[in-house]
Amino acid sequence: MATVPPPQDPESDPRVRAVFDDIRATRGSDFVNNLWRYLAFDPPLLEEVWGEVKAVMATETLLDAKTKEMIYAAVSIANSCEYCTHSHLAAARAKGMSAAEQAELLRIIATAGKTNHLVNAIRPPVDAAFTED
Amino acid sequence: MATVPPPQDPESDPRVRAVFDDIRATRGSDFVNNLWRYLAFDPPLLEEVWGEVKAVMATETLLDAKTKEMIYAAVSIANSCEYCTHSHLAAARAKGMSAAEQAELLRIIATAGKTNHLVNAIRPPVDAAFTED
Amino acid sequence: MATVPPPQDPESDPRVRAVFDDIRATRGSDFVNNLWRYLAFDPPLLEEVWGEVKAVMATETLLDAKTKEMIYAAVSIANSCEYCTHSHLAAARAKGMSAAEQAELLRIIATAGKTNHLVNAIRPPVDAAFTED
Amino acid sequence: MATVPPPQDPESDPRVRAVFDDIRATRGSDFVNNLWRYLAFDPPLLEEVWGEVKAVMATETLLDAKTKEMIYAAVSIANSCEYCTHSHLAAARAKGMSAAEQAELLRIIATAGKTNHLVNAIRPPVDAAFTED
Amino acid sequence: MATVPPPQDPESDPRVRAVFDDIRATRGSDFVNNLWRYLAFDPPLLEEVWGEVKAVMATETLLDAKTKEMIYAAVSIANSCEYCTHSHLAAARAKGMSAAEQAELLRIIATAGKTNHLVNAIRPPVDAAFTED
Amino acid sequence: MATVPPPQDPESDPRVRAVFDDIRATRGSDFVNNLWRYLAFDPPLLEEVWGEVKAVMATETLLDAKTKEMIYAAVSIANSCEYCTHSHLAAARAKGMSAAEQAELLRIIATAGKTNHLVNAIRPPVDAAFTED
Repeated sequence: MATVPPPQDPESDPRVRAVFDDIRATRGSDFVNNLWRYLAFDPPLLEEVWGEVKAVMATETLLDAKTKEMIYAAVSIANSCEYCTHSHLAAARAKGMSAAEQAELLRIIATAGKTNHLVNAIRPPVDAAFTED
Repeated sequence: MATVPPPQDPESDPRVRAVFDDIRATRGSDFVNNLWRYLAFDPPLLEEVWGEVKAVMATETLLDAKTKEMIYAAVSIANSCEYCTHSHLAAARAKGMSAAEQAELLRIIATAGKTNHLVNAIRPPVDAAFTED
Repeated sequence: MATVPPPQDPESDPRVRAVFDDIRATRGSDFVNNLWRYLAFDPPLLEEVWGEVKAVMATETLLDAKTKEMIYAAVSIANSCEYCTHSHLAAARAKGMSAAEQAELLRIIATAGKTNHLVNAIRPPVDAAFTED
Repeated sequence: MATVPPPQDPESDPRVRAVFDDIRATRGSDFVNNLWRYLAFDPPLLEEVWGEVKAVMATETLLDAKTKEMIYAAVSIANSCEYCTHSHLAAARAKGMSAAEQAELLRIIATAGKTNHLVNAIRPPVDAAFTED
Repeated sequence: MATVPPPQDPESDPRVRAVFDDIRATRGSDFVNNLWRYLAFDPPLLEEVWGEVKAVMATETLLDAKTKEMIYAAVSIANSCEYCTHSHLAAARAKGMSAAEQAELLRIIATAGKTNHLVNAIRPPVDAAFTED
Repeated sequence: MATVPPPQDPESDPRVRAVFDDIRATRGSDFVNNLWRYLAFDPPLLEEVWGEVKAVMATETLLDAKTKEMIYAAVSIANSCEYCTHSHLAAARAKGMSAAEQAELLRIIATAGKTNHLVNAIRPPVDAAFTED
C-alpha cells in the first residue's frame, strides 16, 4: 500500500521512458524495480533521484560496487527502511556478495547497533585524538 | 559530560587491566580511548563488549579491516551516535581510508539517507525479486 | 497484526463512544480510522491522545491545517512510522495538498534526510549566529 | 546553545511560577532543571508538558517510579536524545536505581539495539503467536 | 518476505539443533520463533546472539524478567523494529505484564517520544547536576 | 570537533569560491555558515549539495520559503541532527517564522513524536482509505 497512485503505463511519458531505458541499460537487465515505477508519479523527481543514485552507485569510483551496496544497505537497515534493505542487499548479492559476506555484514551492523546504544547511554567525551580540527 | 562516574585509575582492577592490555596489544598502540575507559565502571560489561568488538572488527575475516570500519561508521552516522562516528571514521583512516574514500563514503551515506526518507514516504511494495523466501 | 486485541464493538463503552462522536463531529465524516479503534482498548489513553491531537491539529491556530498535516507527515516519515505516514499524508490531501505539493513535500524531506546524514557525518560546529542564547 | 532565548526571570510570569512551584512541590526539591526553564518561553506549552509528565511519571500507578524512569531513559537513549538521557538516568538514580542496576539497564538496551538491527536486516515474518488480533 | 533464505529443516545442523534445544529448555516450551529459525542460516551467529540474549534476559539478575522485557520492548518501539516490538511485548505478557501495565508502558513510551522530540528541538544545556563526571 | 579538517582559506579554490559567491548572492548576506565551510574539503560534493539545497529551498516553488524551512527543521529534529536543527530553525525565523509559530511548530513535532511511538507500539493495520494504490 503506497502513498502515491500506482503507476499506470508510466513509460507513456517520454521523460519516464528515458529514465527507465537508462536504468535498463546501466544494469544490463529488463527489470525496473518498484521504487522507480512509483517515483514516476513525478518525472522531474524521478530524473533527479536516478541521476544521483547512478552517479554515486553505478559509476566507477574508488570503492567497488559490492562495497558500496553493503554500505548503502547498512544505512538503510539502521534507518529501518524495509524496501531499501531488500533492494540494496539484493543489489549487493547481484554484485558478488556471498552468503558468508552477508552474514559478516549483519554481524558488523548488529555490533554497531549495540555499541551505538551503549555509547548514547554512557556519553563518554570524544577523544581529542579522533577529531580532525 | 557522561552518565557514569569518570574512570579513576581503572587499571587497578585486574580485569580492567587485562582488557586494556589486550586493546593495546591488538592495536599495537598505547592509546586506550574513552569508551573503554568509561566502560570500566562495569568490568564484566567491558570484557563482553571488547570481546565482541575484537571478534568482529579486529580478527581477520572475509571483509578487510578498512571496509568493516566504513560500514561501522555508516551505521553510527545513521544512528546519530557522535562518539561512534568520530571513533570509527578515525579507525577507518587508521586502516587506510584516504580523504577521497572518506568523501565517497559520505556521498553514499548521504544518498542512502535521501532515498531512505523518500521510500519511507512513498512506501512502494517490495519487489518479489528482492526477497529470499 | 497488532499488539493489542482488535476492537470488538468499542462504542459499547460510553467513554469510547463520546470520543468517536467527537472525532466524527470534528471531521464532519463517519469514518473513524484504525488508530482510534485500536486505542479504544484503553479509554483514558484514547481520551488523552485524541484531546491532544484535536487541540494541536483540529483547532484553528496560526498555521493552516494543510501545513500542519505536512509537518506531521514529515516527522512521521523521518521516524519510519508507516501507519502515521499514510494517515497524515491522507489528511494533508483531505485538507487541500495537491499532488504537486505532495511531490514538493517529498523533495524537501528527501533533501533534509540527505543533509542530516551528511552533517551527522561531518559534525561541523554550530555557528554562533544560529543560537538564541 | 539552545534554539529558544534563554530564560530571563521566568517566574515573573505567574503561569510559569505556578508550574515551577508545582515541580518543586512534587519533587520535594528546590531544583528546577533546564528543560522547564527553557520551556518557559511558551507558558501554555510548559503547562501542558509538565501536566503530562507529572501524570505519567510522578503519580502513583501500577509500575514503580524507578522502573518508569528506566523505561523513559531506555526510549531516550534509543532516540539519541542527550539531555533526556542525562535527566532520566539521573531521575532513576534519585528513585533508587543502583549502579549495578544501571549497568544491567545498559546491557538490556545494548542487546536490544543489537537485535533490533539484526531483525531489521533479516526481516523475518512476525509469528502469528505474537499478535493479539 | 525476508532477506535470507527460509529455514529448511534447520535442526539437521547439530549446532542449530543444540541452540533450539536450549531455547526450548530455557523457555519450557516447544515453540521456537521465527527470529531464531531465520538466524539459523548462520549457525555461529545464531549461537552468539542466543547466548547473549539468554545471558541478559533469561538469567536471574537484579531486575525481574517482566521489567526487562518491558525495557527491551521500549527500545524496540523507539527503533521502529516491528518484529521485535511484537516478540518482546508478547514476552512481557508471558512474564506477567497485565493489559493495564501494557497500557501504562505505552503511555510512558509515548510521553518519552514527545519530550525527546521537544528537547531535540529546544536543545537546552544539560544541567551539571545530572552528570556523573 | 569535526571529522574533516577545518577549512583553511577555502575560497582559494575557485570551485569553492564560486559556490560561496552563489550562497552569498542567493541569500543576500555575507555570512557563509559552517556546513558549507566544512563541506569545502570536497569541492564536487559541495557543489552537488549546494545545488540541490538551492533548487529545493531557495527557488520559488509552490510552498513558501518559511513553510519549507519549518518542514526541513521538523525532519532534522526527528533525526536528532543538532546542527541542522539550529540552522533550519534559524532559517525559518529569517524567513518570517514568529516566536508563536515556532512554539506551534514544536507542539506539532512533539505530538507527532508521541503518536509515532504509540502507533509503532500498537501497530494497527493501515486503513484502506488512506492508500493511493
